[in-house]
Amino acid sequence: MNKGLKIAVIGGGSSYTPELIEGFIKRANELPVKEIYLVDIEKGKEKLDIIYNLTKRMINKAGLDISVYKTLNRKEAIKDADFVVTQLRVGGLEARARDEGIPLRYNVIGQETTGAGGFAKAIRTIPVILDICRDIEELSPDAWLINFTNPAGIITETVLKYTNVKVMGLCNVPIGMVNNVAKLLGVSSNRVRIEFAGLNHMVYGKEIYLDGKNVTDVVLEKLGDGGLINMKNIPDIKWDTDFIKTLKMLPCPYHRYFYLSDDILKEELEGLKKNKGTRAEQVMKIEQELFEKYKNPALDEKPEELEKRGGAYYSDAAVSLISAIHNDKSEIHTVNIRNNGAISSLPNDVVVEINAVINRAGAKPVVLGELPVQINGLIQQVKAYELLTVKAGVTGDYYTALMALTTNPLVYSANIAKKLLDDILLENKDYLPQFN
Amino acid sequence: MNKGLKIAVIGGGSSYTPELIEGFIKRANELPVKEIYLVDIEKGKEKLDIIYNLTKRMINKAGLDISVYKTLNRKEAIKDADFVVTQLRVGGLEARARDEGIPLRYNVIGQETTGAGGFAKAIRTIPVILDICRDIEELSPDAWLINFTNPAGIITETVLKYTNVKVMGLCNVPIGMVNNVAKLLGVSSNRVRIEFAGLNHMVYGKEIYLDGKNVTDVVLEKLGDGGLINMKNIPDIKWDTDFIKTLKMLPCPYHRYFYLSDDILKEELEGLKKNKGTRAEQVMKIEQELFEKYKNPALDEKPEELEKRGGAYYSDAAVSLISAIHNDKSEIHTVNIRNNGAISSLPNDVVVEINAVINRAGAKPVVLGELPVQINGLIQQVKAYELLTVKAGVTGDYYTALMALTTNPLVYSANIAKKLLDDILLENKDYLPQFN
Amino acid sequence: MNKGLKIAVIGGGSSYTPELIEGFIKRANELPVKEIYLVDIEKGKEKLDIIYNLTKRMINKAGLDISVYKTLNRKEAIKDADFVVTQLRVGGLEARARDEGIPLRYNVIGQETTGAGGFAKAIRTIPVILDICRDIEELSPDAWLINFTNPAGIITETVLKYTNVKVMGLCNVPIGMVNNVAKLLGVSSNRVRIEFAGLNHMVYGKEIYLDGKNVTDVVLEKLGDGGLINMKNIPDIKWDTDFIKTLKMLPCPYHRYFYLSDDILKEELEGLKKNKGTRAEQVMKIEQELFEKYKNPALDEKPEELEKRGGAYYSDAAVSLISAIHNDKSEIHTVNIRNNGAISSLPNDVVVEINAVINRAGAKPVVLGELPVQINGLIQQVKAYELLTVKAGVTGDYYTALMALTTNPLVYSANIAKKLLDDILLENKDYLPQFN
Amino acid sequence: MNKGLKIAVIGGGSSYTPELIEGFIKRANELPVKEIYLVDIEKGKEKLDIIYNLTKRMINKAGLDISVYKTLNRKEAIKDADFVVTQLRVGGLEARARDEGIPLRYNVIGQETTGAGGFAKAIRTIPVILDICRDIEELSPDAWLINFTNPAGIITETVLKYTNVKVMGLCNVPIGMVNNVAKLLGVSSNRVRIEFAGLNHMVYGKEIYLDGKNVTDVVLEKLGDGGLINMKNIPDIKWDTDFIKTLKMLPCPYHRYFYLSDDILKEELEGLKKNKGTRAEQVMKIEQELFEKYKNPALDEKPEELEKRGGAYYSDAAVSLISAIHNDKSEIHTVNIRNNGAISSLPNDVVVEINAVINRAGAKPVVLGELPVQINGLIQQVKAYELLTVKAGVTGDYYTALMALTTNPLVYSANIAKKLLDDILLENKDYLPQFN
Repeated sequence: MNKGLKIAVIGGGSSYTPELIEGFIKRANELPVKEIYLVDIEKGKEKLDIIYNLTKRMINKAGLDISVYKTLNRKEAIKDADFVVTQLRVGGLEARARDEGIPLRYNVIGQETTGAGGFAKAIRTIPVILDICRDIEELSPDAWLINFTNPAGIITETVLKYTNVKVMGLCNVPIGMVNNVAKLLGVSSNRVRIEFAGLNHMVYGKEIYLDGKNVTDVVLEKLGDGGLINMKNIPDIKWDTDFIKTLKMLPCPYHRYFYLSDDILKEELEGLKKNKGTRAEQVMKIEQELFEKYKNPALDEKPEELEKRGGAYYSDAAVSLISAIHNDKSEIHTVNIRNNGAISSLPNDVVVEINAVINRAGAKPVVLGELPVQINGLIQQVKAYELLTVKAGVTGDYYTALMALTTNPLVYSANIAKKLLDDILLENKDYLPQFN
Repeated sequence: MNKGLKIAVIGGGSSYTPELIEGFIKRANELPVKEIYLVDIEKGKEKLDIIYNLTKRMINKAGLDISVYKTLNRKEAIKDADFVVTQLRVGGLEARARDEGIPLRYNVIGQETTGAGGFAKAIRTIPVILDICRDIEELSPDAWLINFTNPAGIITETVLKYTNVKVMGLCNVPIGMVNNVAKLLGVSSNRVRIEFAGLNHMVYGKEIYLDGKNVTDVVLEKLGDGGLINMKNIPDIKWDTDFIKTLKMLPCPYHRYFYLSDDILKEELEGLKKNKGTRAEQVMKIEQELFEKYKNPALDEKPEELEKRGGAYYSDAAVSLISAIHNDKSEIHTVNIRNNGAISSLPNDVVVEINAVINRAGAKPVVLGELPVQINGLIQQVKAYELLTVKAGVTGDYYTALMALTTNPLVYSANIAKKLLDDILLENKDYLPQFN
Repeated sequence: MNKGLKIAVIGGGSSYTPELIEGFIKRANELPVKEIYLVDIEKGKEKLDIIYNLTKRMINKAGLDISVYKTLNRKEAIKDADFVVTQLRVGGLEARARDEGIPLRYNVIGQETTGAGGFAKAIRTIPVILDICRDIEELSPDAWLINFTNPAGIITETVLKYTNVKVMGLCNVPIGMVNNVAKLLGVSSNRVRIEFAGLNHMVYGKEIYLDGKNVTDVVLEKLGDGGLINMKNIPDIKWDTDFIKTLKMLPCPYHRYFYLSDDILKEELEGLKKNKGTRAEQVMKIEQELFEKYKNPALDEKPEELEKRGGAYYSDAAVSLISAIHNDKSEIHTVNIRNNGAISSLPNDVVVEINAVINRAGAKPVVLGELPVQINGLIQQVKAYELLTVKAGVTGDYYTALMALTTNPLVYSANIAKKLLDDILLENKDYLPQFN
Repeated sequence: MNKGLKIAVIGGGSSYTPELIEGFIKRANELPVKEIYLVDIEKGKEKLDIIYNLTKRMINKAGLDISVYKTLNRKEAIKDADFVVTQLRVGGLEARARDEGIPLRYNVIGQETTGAGGFAKAIRTIPVILDICRDIEELSPDAWLINFTNPAGIITETVLKYTNVKVMGLCNVPIGMVNNVAKLLGVSSNRVRIEFAGLNHMVYGKEIYLDGKNVTDVVLEKLGDGGLINMKNIPDIKWDTDFIKTLKMLPCPYHRYFYLSDDILKEELEGLKKNKGTRAEQVMKIEQELFEKYKNPALDEKPEELEKRGGAYYSDAAVSLISAIHNDKSEIHTVNIRNNGAISSLPNDVVVEINAVINRAGAKPVVLGELPVQINGLIQQVKAYELLTVKAGVTGDYYTALMALTTNPLVYSANIAKKLLDDILLENKDYLPQFN
């Protein structure tokens, strides 16, 4: 237990990596990292080099004894790893641009993690994550897979159902909601605690506590008054006061796609008309600028601009989770894991996003009970979509894929689902071996 | 047990009543009806007179010893009744026209039993059905309430949750599906058996049997080939072959509103443009013609034209159910009743539409198990909407009503839900004492 | 569907067979049996001959065109069978004598289907039933297995969990309870209906109806007053009036072993002292007499003495069930089948004894809901014992077997369980290949 | 939140109180106790005086600013209390002697918290705890009730079902098991973590961790080798190695009554013959000696002899729980609370003993999933007994009480249950207003 840890970062050339590295540096006193392996694919070699060099400068500045490696050989990175972090994006931002663009052809919201776009991303990613898991099963069966790859719920569900890998899915939305509530209340984040319930990007803050006192009503009141809780990559549409009163809990930023779908769609379609480009296209530009900065040999810390990219709190979420596991802390984190009865309204064997006790033995969810009726319907619908997507992504069955898209609440019409599916399969065919 | 039965028909002036009367006449040998009370409200007095006279002529022609009464005094009809049949329509066809029209203002499907229109109908009907149940609790606590009033699932759920009345909700959709499948197969209906699963107007034929042999695939193949299974009042849009293959079960005609919402909406909006009128307006015309016929003193049987009205099989469904109860037949009928574990995916205490064993002790559902994932999401979503609607209809709480509408899959956007709700509450205010 | 049926009777040399044959004769008008194969093992050859001859005489007398065969080749009998009936007894009455005797050494009740004796019988039978099922899977995969072999619940659970054979487990206890209640009320059996809940030999009559009217209280009152409901092979101990009032439902005869264990044990131990012999020894004598009668070439019908043997109503239960399947009757029978949610308090995948709708598609249980608290504990305990026994019987794992016996409410002490297990394994070792 | 805390100790004159006081002293730095009210009844006045004086000396020695009060007026103590601790014993040790003695008359194990003795204690205590809760509801509705009174599971279930009081039930068995496992492994207790599952005095250590590593097998191996895990008040009977292997988890000391009932009963009956006296009689003697010590004006700390009394770790369990609540620690403790889905095999609304996250918002159980089959039966049986006992204790219904006793696995025979019940009701009649 005292030997240093080996960390494998799959998708190591990602622009987010400096966040993660910063996290390891901050927690060096409690987390004895010895080796960090940054892995990427041939196509990402150039970015990987840039990130590798920046990482080394950051580690050096911190004066830490951590060896950093870059490699295109995933097996080398995974072998004997203690933690494998996946933050890959199959098909890159070009694929994301398609995910956001195809749905808009049919007046359907284009979003990279939910809706038809998220579906495309899911079925592209599933074959890759299964490959990674085969490597982990073989080369580091005791490693924990910390999955950040979106759609994080669906990917984690795939790993849990089709592999023997120990996995937790992680997202920065819950930690972002805690931080935003803290800002709304004008207090520090560590005084705020939220009971989360739901699925990834479909999570609700069921109860909100300040210093252990229930302040849900106070927060919702402020929220209804226009208090903004959002993320960088989601249109800033205000919640209606009456809607918040009737929901009786804190929606997550992504809920806008479901409850305000008409406004979101209108905004997306107008953006298209004005040649504003999809979010993917905006992000490509930001990335380019970021990597320019990263190249600067004088830079030896995470540049401020990274926040714009949408990954705020990423390092906190990931590294504090890894520390809770390694140090057997029995601490509460919000993760994507097997429900196992925590939410009585959902089957035991599906993945939920929920507060859980984290220690070396893994994650055990804290009981939540029945889902309130006002959120149960939507969550069930989205979970059905997720289960169908996992099955479609693993088997490559056309009809299961069609049912998945039909079931997605942002799509709904069976006829449009079919058109979307046919376009998605055609335009992603290089990434969909299971459908060929 | 040998005494003759007293039947109270609430909404006796309905154009459907001759169907019901025909049913009693057909089964006179097994069902010893002694008295039929036709009840209606002051406003429906004229129609009640017409129906009363036609009923008497029909009974006379059949040579039966059944006394027929008409009354505006509901208590008189309910007192000591053995069966109370509810087929009322609060607000009449004028209200239906509004239910169908208001949603279209906001590009939302207008339908009288599902969607926002069905919601309006539900909250108008709930106070009336509760009043009726108070009378039954007081004057005929052992009577069975056979509820035909739509939305039949929501109304039955209200009765089960808020009264002590023994109730079964009944709909002619399942029997219609059996008959249509028989037609598709070219066999007589009694050779076809369907395992139904779901909710009222949201019911699926999970397995289809011909002479006890599973022919589900055969039927779906024919259906995908254009075999038509529909009802008079629903637009005739063909199901896509691939969709039926992926659904793997028989949809009910009302599923078109959910799976083909874009086509339906287009058709409704075009109808509006062409001044075709809503379905309510068409029905008003049919009704007028029907009542003209009913007035004819020479008419002493159910006229053929009644079928156009949409109530086919109504008499079969209702009277054979009453006979199964009275004669303790332990026969299988498809009814709306408490789930009680029959569908494991839904709570025990909600109403489902399902095959059940019917005898004097009531209805016990036949076990169905888990809902297949391809229908679980939508059913859960609609059940959540139903539960919220029941609560809103009973309490008159604005926020619960808003959540109900927001949860309805035909509405979805929270902002549109609010506009719809405000219009509905305003334009139905005479029928919504609970909201004032 | 019109071709004649082939019936295979495994354990055809059983003294019960004439009951079954009588059943087929009685229902010849609705059940077109063409061939009956009586199968037995080498050791039972002599009895098989006797039964075969009697069967032929019975069929001849009835003037039916049914071919009867006897064979030691099970595969020949099973090939293309429509129904396979299992009524075998592994190890014969000698084994039963041991099952009843071993427990008494340790002051534990000795009974052949429950308690430690039933456990021994179960693990002897499981390898044999699995063999039979392999034959059915290969030679008549569409056949229905009607299992009468005890412990019927455990054997049916084994078949359902470890084979693909279509099975219903059947017992004459429920039909016996209906007939006894009818006698108690002085009415004919067809006017009585009981809602059964529980497990095989652990089934309760939850509600009792006469002509569809709930008469549970009336029956319990009479029962508490000494009205006897029992079977031939269970000691006649009166139920206490207060106990019946608190149970609030009808116990089955076998419940005496659980609720009156001290009295039963005392009686068994005294019987032992008086050299009365175990029930097995008494039955051996009855059997000998029966077979003497069966040999008589003048006998061409079921002799009255067979009733003493304990198998009353066997033909009714079995043949009316077979007819309900073959004729697609959708009739209610009480069978052992997969719970599937019918009893919400038990997992979906365990076998329960319950009322079910029977037709060509199989058996679907009628929903029962939660088990009342006064019976839930005992049923759960016995079900846990059954599940462990199935696993032990299939795997031959010593520790699972030990836990099964420890969990049995008639055993309880872990130390005694171990002694019992060691004796059982030793003295049955010829029949327990899986433990060697 | 900064004001000092008021603690009300009901049953303040108990010999255990010095344990509790020691706990408050030890944690004075994190738990700002300002007032401690020791309450007792008239009959316990003398003991209360002794404890009060000792408490004051202990507080003085520690140099703390805590005011100590003694009172016979419960309402005065409860008013505005932050925590109410119940450690009362209705009927005192005389009643316990009866609880242990009556069952032995009928060869039934006599134990004060399980079996028939625990039943008697439960129905004596229920009216008193309900009275206390009425006071809390009125005078300190925000207070937490920390219930130590046995049978702790049943009492907590009563409070949760019949009052609005915020309650956690607490027992020193789980903490004792952790400490004993630590001793067995030769490590300090804080390195050991156990996943507990079950009911009060029926709790299993499902998984055992040392420094976060699963060491369940290691511990069970040592246990089977004779490693002793027991409590002072339970006969020291060794677990059989094979039994532990088959159980696959750590039994609690009280499980001896269930798995080794024959040995325990033999030992109890022999003790009776040898005039060893029941455990109650031994405890009376210990108590007398303790109070003699407590009287000594020179004594100003908890005397070592208190450990013999059986209440080891009491202060740790109680005061660290109170601190976790007050300081909003989100720390894991093992408590008796509403299941709420944590154990999928049990209903949501029953009380279980389980690991839970403790903070100011209360206790949320950590999910456990399905109960393993080898313990599910017994736990279900005991829970059924508990539910019936709660109902009997609240309603005073004779038949429910009879069913409760019949359901208890240590009793079983319905006839003996009746004899036991009649003796219990007669000999406790002064304490059973609800049955009169």
